[in-house]
Amino acid sequence: MADSPITPRSQDFAAWYQDVVLQGDMAEPAEIVKGCMVIKANGYAVWETLQAELDRRFKATGHQNLYFPLLIPQSFLQREAEHVEGFSPELAVVTIAGGKELEEPYVIRPTSETIIGHFFSRWIQSWRDLPVLVNQWANIVRWELRTRMFLRTTEFLWQEGHTAHATHQEAVEEVLRMLDVYAEVAEDVMAMPVIKGVKTQAERFAGAVRTYSIEAMMQNGIALQSGTSHDLGQNFGKAFNVQFQNKAGQLEYVWQTSWGVSTRLIGGLVMTHSDDKGLVLPPRMAPRKAVLVPIYRKDDERAKVMEAAERIAKDVGARLDDREGQTPGAKFFHWERRGVPVVLELGPRDLASGNIVLKRRDNGVKNTLPQSALSTALPEALECMQRDLYNAAKQRLKNNTVVANSLDEVRQILEPVTAEKGGGKFVMAHVKDDPACDARLKEFKATVRNVPLVDEFDGPGKCILTGEPVDRRVVIAKAY
Amino acid sequence: MADSPITPRSQDFAAWYQDVVLQGDMAEPAEIVKGCMVIKANGYAVWETLQAELDRRFKATGHQNLYFPLLIPQSFLQREAEHVEGFSPELAVVTIAGGKELEEPYVIRPTSETIIGHFFSRWIQSWRDLPVLVNQWANIVRWELRTRMFLRTTEFLWQEGHTAHATHQEAVEEVLRMLDVYAEVAEDVMAMPVIKGVKTQAERFAGAVRTYSIEAMMQNGIALQSGTSHDLGQNFGKAFNVQFQNKAGQLEYVWQTSWGVSTRLIGGLVMTHSDDKGLVLPPRMAPRKAVLVPIYRKDDERAKVMEAAERIAKDVGARLDDREGQTPGAKFFHWERRGVPVVLELGPRDLASGNIVLKRRDNGVKNTLPQSALSTALPEALECMQRDLYNAAKQRLKNNTVVANSLDEVRQILEPVTAEKGGGKFVMAHVKDDPACDARLKEFKATVRNVPLVDEFDGPGKCILTGEPVDRRVVIAKAY
Repeated sequence: MADSPITPRSQDFAAWYQDVVLQGDMAEPAEIVKGCMVIKANGYAVWETLQAELDRRFKATGHQNLYFPLLIPQSFLQREAEHVEGFSPELAVVTIAGGKELEEPYVIRPTSETIIGHFFSRWIQSWRDLPVLVNQWANIVRWELRTRMFLRTTEFLWQEGHTAHATHQEAVEEVLRMLDVYAEVAEDVMAMPVIKGVKTQAERFAGAVRTYSIEAMMQNGIALQSGTSHDLGQNFGKAFNVQFQNKAGQLEYVWQTSWGVSTRLIGGLVMTHSDDKGLVLPPRMAPRKAVLVPIYRKDDERAKVMEAAERIAKDVGARLDDREGQTPGAKFFHWERRGVPVVLELGPRDLASGNIVLKRRDNGVKNTLPQSALSTALPEALECMQRDLYNAAKQRLKNNTVVANSLDEVRQILEPVTAEKGGGKFVMAHVKDDPACDARLKEFKATVRNVPLVDEFDGPGKCILTGEPVDRRVVIAKAY
Repeated sequence: MADSPITPRSQDFAAWYQDVVLQGDMAEPAEIVKGCMVIKANGYAVWETLQAELDRRFKATGHQNLYFPLLIPQSFLQREAEHVEGFSPELAVVTIAGGKELEEPYVIRPTSETIIGHFFSRWIQSWRDLPVLVNQWANIVRWELRTRMFLRTTEFLWQEGHTAHATHQEAVEEVLRMLDVYAEVAEDVMAMPVIKGVKTQAERFAGAVRTYSIEAMMQNGIALQSGTSHDLGQNFGKAFNVQFQNKAGQLEYVWQTSWGVSTRLIGGLVMTHSDDKGLVLPPRMAPRKAVLVPIYRKDDERAKVMEAAERIAKDVGARLDDREGQTPGAKFFHWERRGVPVVLELGPRDLASGNIVLKRRDNGVKNTLPQSALSTALPEALECMQRDLYNAAKQRLKNNTVVANSLDEVRQILEPVTAEKGGGKFVMAHVKDDPACDARLKEFKATVRNVPLVDEFDGPGKCILTGEPVDRRVVIAKAY
């Protein structure tokens, strides 16, 4: 379409993303508040679906939701040396409240390890109080320099899990359990394949002993860190004096974890499945699975079509688009841009033949079928679309994952890649977990995304930078 | 019980409330952040129930959830004269972000009329764009001087509905529709009777033309404003230039509404139903409806009891309290303080007789019944308890509502009342809607709660302060 409001991916991937988000009623920039957005109706409905899927799994794994204050005394952040170093540049600080200058300023939470550490120290005395397994749904503020809707915004919505355990082993099990929950939601619900792995020391969370992540590949080959799960060791336990009496009667510091995913996932969802016509949502993520658009020209047609349309829409749980003063064509574009998985069309000819037309959003295929078959055909089409979207993304990930055996090879593959032009790859190479090695990749704006938990390549090898032996290939890519 | 951790209501109602909230795992104060609390597991689960009940009704009345930024440019608040005057003293102000002093500070939202007004002006051009019906679930900060958990905290959670309409009549219909939704949730779900009415001019929301409220009576006779719905007229439309072209082609300002309820409702729930043993939750608000406590002494008893207990708990959807190392007595107290509506007891004697014991939290009555009858008896008991709690609260409201025909009478009734000692009343008197009249009641710390929409008293009369004719009696009370 010449007058499409959506820039093609091949022309400018970044512009395409922005167009899809805007036209899909997902979000719009809020320039009046630096780096913020308004999450619009379709975007928030997707977030509600994601929340429900995650929350159910958090509760099934024994976690309870709590809510901690938005504001944190500034001094709290200073108690953990790496933590304050990591977050200081990004803080928003409240210095005036109730008309007065505050004696000690508050920061708006950039994450809640510190304030939750404080409460853990009040709640935990004995091994009997452990484990403590809590989660919080909340908003977060980090003053980011370069922002993009959903992917990186000054304020974002997320969940943050925080747990305390009696042993390091238990904490590590928790960290991996929640990483699995994230991977399951990403793959089974969002149809977005991910690679689970460990971050290098240079890339770990400020204050963590180890950070695990799930990494997804967007359609331009750029990586998106989609969720993280941190083994905090005893760092925050020591900073906030969270001690417990163990079974032997001795005082020990607790072992803590934290883990989070955010509205960033929605950006990943958009960039995994959408096309040049706009948003594509996998059925399990779609707030509306199917919409029925009635087609008629004359008033006498209208009554008959609407009567059947209402009945069918109700039978199969589809939304009937009965808006007046809109052509069927306008309605099709409307739902297409909003990523509704299936659009049903019903006109006078279909009425006569007892048929209905089912059109899938992902491949555009139209299928004419008997109305009586719809109650089976619709869920089948949705399931099939869910599977097809996952398989397509999985295949793309596979096609764009390459092996490299020298820094030059990695550089040649990744240096020309940009988020706008695309062509990104996941480059598998042997690299030592040493900040000096990470720094070399920064020269061409690539990073080690993670060290995969499962080695699907050739096992140990020599670091392409130091020549030292390393365990397995790591994922190198450009990332959002 | 001599060692009860809960102060009796008769001794100190305020201390009782604090004890119930703490012992019920509802919340605890967060002294390190002025006037804030941590919402704990049981409190947050109650909030989730309330959110689900409200959200379902908001969607059924055509509203969509969106999310707007937490931070609002300070100048936005100044655009509506009454609004800034009302909220200025309570603002928390961000002056530093990303390591730099900001050119224009941001305030943390004390409510979102201003920032939403800004976006409405971008979204609304024509009568075809109207009505706009949005809701937001969010956290709010107001720097309050005197705080109490749930009832008044510096930060709280709420929902705020914001709508724009083409006519004033449509806006007023919306305001009353949402007031009805609030009253329905309060009465049918929370079992908390409320009085719907209009606020006096002195008490209306800063920037509104008219404010409607629902007012509930706590067990000490003190009023709790439990929800408000505002007719904003064209005030914010003019402040943010939200204009639309009407069907005649002329530019008009939109007519707006806003309406909200918050975590304050949870305080109302606690103070309506709980008793000297702790929290009482009406079944429809309870995250867990029933808990089964198995009773056994010896190991051979244990196996048999547990086998039956597991089966029965699963059958009726009760939670089985299978914690080891806790006596049944300790378990009973545990669930009692947390307000679980029904506790089931199953011991060796019950196994032999095929019976089970059902105990209701509200009246403490124990009922021994055949296990086979439980699947009918449990939902019946829950429904009955829901009804009994509502009726008891309704009766209390009736018993403590009195008529007065002079200021002296009102003063004599209300002057001695305090939140700690109780004895509060809703005093029905004829008072003119004039800030000078409201001011006279402030002398003894009472306020006009609202002018009821439905007059259940004697119609028109003369104002007890000015002698001028007024339409009907108003509700005067001390309030939280």
